[in-house]
Amino acid sequence: MSESWGRLQPRITELSDLSSALRLLGWDQHVMMPVAGGPARASTVATLQAIAHSRLSSPELGELLADAEADNSLGEDERASVNLLSRDHEKATRVPEALVRELAEVEALSFQAWTQARPANDFSILEPHLSRVVALKKEAADAIGWEDERYDALLDDYEPGMATRTVEALFDKLVPSLRPVTETILGAAGERPLFLTRTYEVDKQESFCVWLIQMMGFDLSEGRFDVSPHPFTIHIGGGDVRQTTRYEPKALMMSIRGSMHETGHALYEQGVPKEMVGLPIGDIRSLGLHESQSRIWEIQVGMGRAFVEFMLPHLKDRFPEELGRLSPDEFYRGVNHPRRSLIRIQADEVTYNLHIALRLELELALFRDELSVAELPEAFEAAMEKHLGIRPDDHADGVLQDMHWAVGGFGYFPTYTLGTLYAAALFERARSDLGDLEQDLRNGDTSPLLAWLRDKIHIHGGRRSGTELAEQAIGAPLGVEAFLDHLKKKYAEIYDVSF
Amino acid sequence: MSESWGRLQPRITELSDLSSALRLLGWDQHVMMPVAGGPARASTVATLQAIAHSRLSSPELGELLADAEADNSLGEDERASVNLLSRDHEKATRVPEALVRELAEVEALSFQAWTQARPANDFSILEPHLSRVVALKKEAADAIGWEDERYDALLDDYEPGMATRTVEALFDKLVPSLRPVTETILGAAGERPLFLTRTYEVDKQESFCVWLIQMMGFDLSEGRFDVSPHPFTIHIGGGDVRQTTRYEPKALMMSIRGSMHETGHALYEQGVPKEMVGLPIGDIRSLGLHESQSRIWEIQVGMGRAFVEFMLPHLKDRFPEELGRLSPDEFYRGVNHPRRSLIRIQADEVTYNLHIALRLELELALFRDELSVAELPEAFEAAMEKHLGIRPDDHADGVLQDMHWAVGGFGYFPTYTLGTLYAAALFERARSDLGDLEQDLRNGDTSPLLAWLRDKIHIHGGRRSGTELAEQAIGAPLGVEAFLDHLKKKYAEIYDVSF
Repeated sequence: MSESWGRLQPRITELSDLSSALRLLGWDQHVMMPVAGGPARASTVATLQAIAHSRLSSPELGELLADAEADNSLGEDERASVNLLSRDHEKATRVPEALVRELAEVEALSFQAWTQARPANDFSILEPHLSRVVALKKEAADAIGWEDERYDALLDDYEPGMATRTVEALFDKLVPSLRPVTETILGAAGERPLFLTRTYEVDKQESFCVWLIQMMGFDLSEGRFDVSPHPFTIHIGGGDVRQTTRYEPKALMMSIRGSMHETGHALYEQGVPKEMVGLPIGDIRSLGLHESQSRIWEIQVGMGRAFVEFMLPHLKDRFPEELGRLSPDEFYRGVNHPRRSLIRIQADEVTYNLHIALRLELELALFRDELSVAELPEAFEAAMEKHLGIRPDDHADGVLQDMHWAVGGFGYFPTYTLGTLYAAALFERARSDLGDLEQDLRNGDTSPLLAWLRDKIHIHGGRRSGTELAEQAIGAPLGVEAFLDHLKKKYAEIYDVSF
Repeated sequence: MSESWGRLQPRITELSDLSSALRLLGWDQHVMMPVAGGPARASTVATLQAIAHSRLSSPELGELLADAEADNSLGEDERASVNLLSRDHEKATRVPEALVRELAEVEALSFQAWTQARPANDFSILEPHLSRVVALKKEAADAIGWEDERYDALLDDYEPGMATRTVEALFDKLVPSLRPVTETILGAAGERPLFLTRTYEVDKQESFCVWLIQMMGFDLSEGRFDVSPHPFTIHIGGGDVRQTTRYEPKALMMSIRGSMHETGHALYEQGVPKEMVGLPIGDIRSLGLHESQSRIWEIQVGMGRAFVEFMLPHLKDRFPEELGRLSPDEFYRGVNHPRRSLIRIQADEVTYNLHIALRLELELALFRDELSVAELPEAFEAAMEKHLGIRPDDHADGVLQDMHWAVGGFGYFPTYTLGTLYAAALFERARSDLGDLEQDLRNGDTSPLLAWLRDKIHIHGGRRSGTELAEQAIGAPLGVEAFLDHLKKKYAEIYDVSF
């Protein structure tokens, strides 16, 4: 081990341990904590964040990093970790401590206001807070610096290295093609199949999902699977990857899709090599690539004909009354039944990315100073009508439906679509590499696919950017065709339509 | 608010938040964490402990404390907090950082060794580690300083302000009387009643305990009740007090007693006034007084005739097959059936404190340099024979049965007996203050007792020492008579014996 790396390592461990503690505080807050513990927890989180920020931005760390950067004896992985940490250090030093603190406070207040504004259907409760958030995010973005435009700095938190113009170009190609495809599919979709809204005992849903996620390769001896109102996955620390799901008696497919989605994230985290965990290269920073893993398992696998046909008999075992007479074809068509929805998180794979497109449009307008927060509700409704052909009756189903903006998460939404695009292209490539993937999935054998993803994506951890890793795995630059082709092919077959 | 207090407060908040995070890490480790997460968790805990220790011992904090101590405008509670924190700061500065770190490492290794030594029944696995622990604890105690003898410094961590000679005097009075009483009771106890070892469905045990702890006043909206191998209670932060229990099909009374015991601890924590939580005066530092609350609910209430008679019909509702024909008297006698056991945590209220007496004897000998770690197993067996009249066949049931020593917890054991003594005296006093306590308990109404404990003990938080608070509530200095009287009266009635 080089001397400069040896001196840096304790600092890396300290930062990683502080992150671990913060992740546990967050997981616990969403899964275990009694609501009454909220104010005290907010203080604990703020204290640990302040300590972590001051360690990350400390001049001593800067000197150790400079020494390591100048050290030619570093191994490749060590160098990659030093580069990643240097970027983080640099970003942390550029934002003044006072701004970091103010942003954290304002975001906490704004989140509070959102939790009241949505049920009250009253944007004015959120507006002053959200205006502060946007103003401070602009200030922070400008402090960090950007190349082409301010939104670059925001995007960098969720998709490091990707430029706004790249993202915008993808959406500009995707949306004009996706809209007519969506209209054709929605026009052909008939009545909603009855089995989708029957009542399914939650205990049996749970036992099915616990079986399913392990069958997919999630290792419960190195993780947990719990329930939370908003499912998520979090890598607490080495040997401890936790995912959550939720169950509702009248929404069987929600829990299955949700569990497969989070298992996609969780398999990615469990696939990061043990020796990388706790190092900067062990952090997966590309949310787009992360989302590709969840979308592959949720949609490409979980809603594909082969795996759906594999799942049905196992579901019939548990729900003979409710599903006993359903044919594989009925089940497959039902699982994939699309509909126009006002709510993003209820959207199917056909309409989902139009929800994202409208959000990206509004985020860009906000940060290009072309739109004010006061104008946001009306702009949201207009954009919804333009992209999805429906207009929300109220703010609760419109601009207030997501919490992302309230907590300052600008730049996050587009990674959902990046994930969709990566997922379609990666799955296409896996199918061609693996040959008999459909047959494996029909047998419920997901291990060849997992092995392929491990090899192409997971074992690289966060060593390289999302684009770099994905494009190497796909063997081509990221485009929108794989996803559009997937949609067209699938629904042409389901509804006998042509595009 | 005085200026000096205003400057100190952010430091207090930071220390309290670090403690909260550490408590959550500990709770999670014992209740939720997959075993594979252990090594990473150990690193996270060590990092946060090091940060907390460096903040606590920092010269800046020392200056702020000195300013506050010299400030005459401080309120009474503020002054009490300053005094408590000054003591902690002083202790923290006296132990060199290197010793703190070495002790933490050696204790972690020693605990590891204990987890292997006990199942292997091999003291030699633990011995070298335990010798290091004892040597370092001596060094730390000497660094901290003590008045009469080194053990004072150890005791101070668990029962601040109590001298070794006080504890020893109590045991010297208790043990000679307790031993013959114990022999008489054990001699009169007949066969173990069959219902104690029947099989009780765990789900029903759980539903009973969840009902019971809430009936006793535990507020689940400001806490949690989970399962862990070693039940414990922990105050994570404001509005968040968590207790655990455990269930075994063949040990109904274990889960009921354990749940009532932990509920006693948890009610104490939930009774600390909200405005004290997060301040030094909100920490309950006397483990003896803490244990008194758990023993009152577990033993004085939970194994007393009135409450046992109240519980029986509720248990019969859940277990009609197993308990349907049991009379209240049979149930009461069964619940209180004593037996000689090698294992402390399986001991009943009659023999329990003899287990503690033997441990205190050995701890004192170790820290008075009258006994070496190598001699400990033999000394343990001899002391067990002396106090309890039985000799362990192996080390697993002897010196290796508890983990306390392996993790450096010397000075902890005697607080169990202090708790027993406080509990008997407090309950006696509550009975005389409340008049019809027996009738209330027979009706399942524990609220008058809880109100009395809230008023006499809980609302004072950690403002005063355990002895001070308990003696004021009892109205007399702490002695051994209340406990001995309680035992004699109870068992004279059960077995028709005289003492």
